[in-house]
Amino acid sequence: MQDFSFYSPTEIVFGKNSEQQIGTLSHQLGGKVLVHYGSGSIKRSGLYDVVKASLKDAGVEFVELGGVQPNPRLSLVHEGIALCRKEQVQGILAVGGGSTIDSAKAIAAGVPYEGDVWDFLAQKEVPKTVLPVGVVLTIPAAGSEASNATVVTKEETQEKFGWNCELLRPVFAVLNPERTYTLPPFQTACGVADIMAHVLERYFTNEPNVAFSDRMCEALLRTMVEQAPRALAEPEDYAARAEIMWAGTLAHNDLLGRGRIEDWSSHMIEHELSAIYDVAHGAGLAVVFPAWMKLIYQERLERFVQFAVRVFDVPYTAGEDEKTALEGIRRIKAFFSSIGLPVTMKELGVPDRSSYDLMAEKAVNTQGGKLGSFRVLSIPDVRRIYELAE
Amino acid sequence: MQDFSFYSPTEIVFGKNSEQQIGTLSHQLGGKVLVHYGSGSIKRSGLYDVVKASLKDAGVEFVELGGVQPNPRLSLVHEGIALCRKEQVQGILAVGGGSTIDSAKAIAAGVPYEGDVWDFLAQKEVPKTVLPVGVVLTIPAAGSEASNATVVTKEETQEKFGWNCELLRPVFAVLNPERTYTLPPFQTACGVADIMAHVLERYFTNEPNVAFSDRMCEALLRTMVEQAPRALAEPEDYAARAEIMWAGTLAHNDLLGRGRIEDWSSHMIEHELSAIYDVAHGAGLAVVFPAWMKLIYQERLERFVQFAVRVFDVPYTAGEDEKTALEGIRRIKAFFSSIGLPVTMKELGVPDRSSYDLMAEKAVNTQGGKLGSFRVLSIPDVRRIYELAE
Repeated sequence: MQDFSFYSPTEIVFGKNSEQQIGTLSHQLGGKVLVHYGSGSIKRSGLYDVVKASLKDAGVEFVELGGVQPNPRLSLVHEGIALCRKEQVQGILAVGGGSTIDSAKAIAAGVPYEGDVWDFLAQKEVPKTVLPVGVVLTIPAAGSEASNATVVTKEETQEKFGWNCELLRPVFAVLNPERTYTLPPFQTACGVADIMAHVLERYFTNEPNVAFSDRMCEALLRTMVEQAPRALAEPEDYAARAEIMWAGTLAHNDLLGRGRIEDWSSHMIEHELSAIYDVAHGAGLAVVFPAWMKLIYQERLERFVQFAVRVFDVPYTAGEDEKTALEGIRRIKAFFSSIGLPVTMKELGVPDRSSYDLMAEKAVNTQGGKLGSFRVLSIPDVRRIYELAE
Repeated sequence: MQDFSFYSPTEIVFGKNSEQQIGTLSHQLGGKVLVHYGSGSIKRSGLYDVVKASLKDAGVEFVELGGVQPNPRLSLVHEGIALCRKEQVQGILAVGGGSTIDSAKAIAAGVPYEGDVWDFLAQKEVPKTVLPVGVVLTIPAAGSEASNATVVTKEETQEKFGWNCELLRPVFAVLNPERTYTLPPFQTACGVADIMAHVLERYFTNEPNVAFSDRMCEALLRTMVEQAPRALAEPEDYAARAEIMWAGTLAHNDLLGRGRIEDWSSHMIEHELSAIYDVAHGAGLAVVFPAWMKLIYQERLERFVQFAVRVFDVPYTAGEDEKTALEGIRRIKAFFSSIGLPVTMKELGVPDRSSYDLMAEKAVNTQGGKLGSFRVLSIPDVRRIYELAE
């Protein structure tokens, strides 16, 4: 086991009655609040009114900024920063999914900084302080509600950068599984793939002594395989929705990666896809992850055997390691497909190979030429992964 | 799943090099520190010198108080409170196992309180503030390093009270698995039983929708069953020691109980045993838990079947639920015995039945007449559990 620190202080308030606490919790945001949200679905669902009423009851003053899009844009972040400065906002309340939370985190980092917040995303500067962020989560997927990460896209350059910083962890996150009842099936499935990918990026590790966290990762992956079909068959199945939502938070609050060497190459390979083709992140991961597995499984066969046996109950026959490993890869691909996700480039809407070289170069070069850890990938490796995903 | 809050902000610093950070971390204790410890084993092991040097290097002023015994005493807590007041101590650094941490928490609560700290333990008062507590852990067992709990014994009345309060969570905990190499085998085994009991108290629940946390509990229990024999066979097996230590923290930082209805009757039944006979808590639990299972397994047979199949790989034959459940109970008892723990009252050193009635009465009455939740136990039930443990 590697030496590690674990500090995940986000207060999670979970359940049917959790929204009653939004106003009181928001006192922790320090004063006037920016309520940040996306397309307006929170207005249609009534959540917007619930948030507004709870803030008013608690005497929390606020301004608002909607319009966050999937793969959140730097231009809106800049707009949010200007608004917060003008209105002397002290903290941000993100109401929505991962894109909204990521946008809120970038605004929170940018307000007290005299330069361009992109400096942080481009790893050129480190912030001294950021505004506190609270979350009301509506989409279990990105895990941003308790993570130290944000991902923002700069439109002009099609650069999609992820940035990790301990100051970005939300102060609190309110999770009501009922809010996920109205998610379109495709979005539910994309969330499931994203959650599983967060675990898989940690699961495939070169650190040998990870018995307990292996089993926790497997616990989460099995839970998703069991619960996702239930939530899709019956969108108002509270139990299934709750399992997915709680798992989504624990998949990415760092718990499952402690003591391990994490990988994250599939995320980087997907980021390049969604920066150019604007595909849903979870859908891109469902295409990329099985292809990544196919490229590299032979080098650490025993780990892919364990994955197949423990997560997908593939029967193990001694001496048939490769067959077992391949069956595990086949099953995760079949699982993604069964919940309505694309599993090929064509299904994803990537029309041809014209961007493969560019994406492969960017995926490797933005990581300083060293992508991943379980197997360090070269530019040709990444191009091959895009091909294997066809 | 039940509605819940989860807030576990203790910073865990884990690994071979973690002790280098003790001094820097202790700046969070607010000023002058009381270094609190037990019998002096930390002096023999050299840890005392490491702590002192790290505090001095970081410029942290401190006084010290040793002498904590297993089942920590109220008298020493009083002594610590008086010392902290006299020396104007701002925070406590507990160096040791659960007893030392529990004693430190009680001192931390007592210093700013004008009455007797026992008021808190007896649930008569609630503290407004407590001093911050930091931890350097040497025994994986109680989970006190990241929990909101303390257990203290009042010698005169043989009362052993547990008290939970969010203010009691340590600010940081330094965990170096190498420090557990020198634990006597019996103490290692007692720690394993305590850790497993913390999970079992949460695992046996009447909340039906707990798929993910069930699997996390099972992950932890399996890890202990696998790793404990390794640590006992080879005391300097870093990997095994690390798995046990990390599992010990996660067994009791509240993670595994979220969304569940917890039980805790076996802990209460054991507390009465150790208050009178001064047995090791983990040893008492190894005797009590299988007996509790035997009393109640028929009422929620499916949960005991799941336990047997998923934790101990008991083969399941349709229609043979009771046999499967009983085999699970037999295996956990056999496991405790295999790692050198007592599994009967006689082996525990309880000579006769003379205290059964008194202990059963106290176990039930200190819980307001309602002990446990998975099955609410009466005084005769508890007496029967002591008998089943013979």
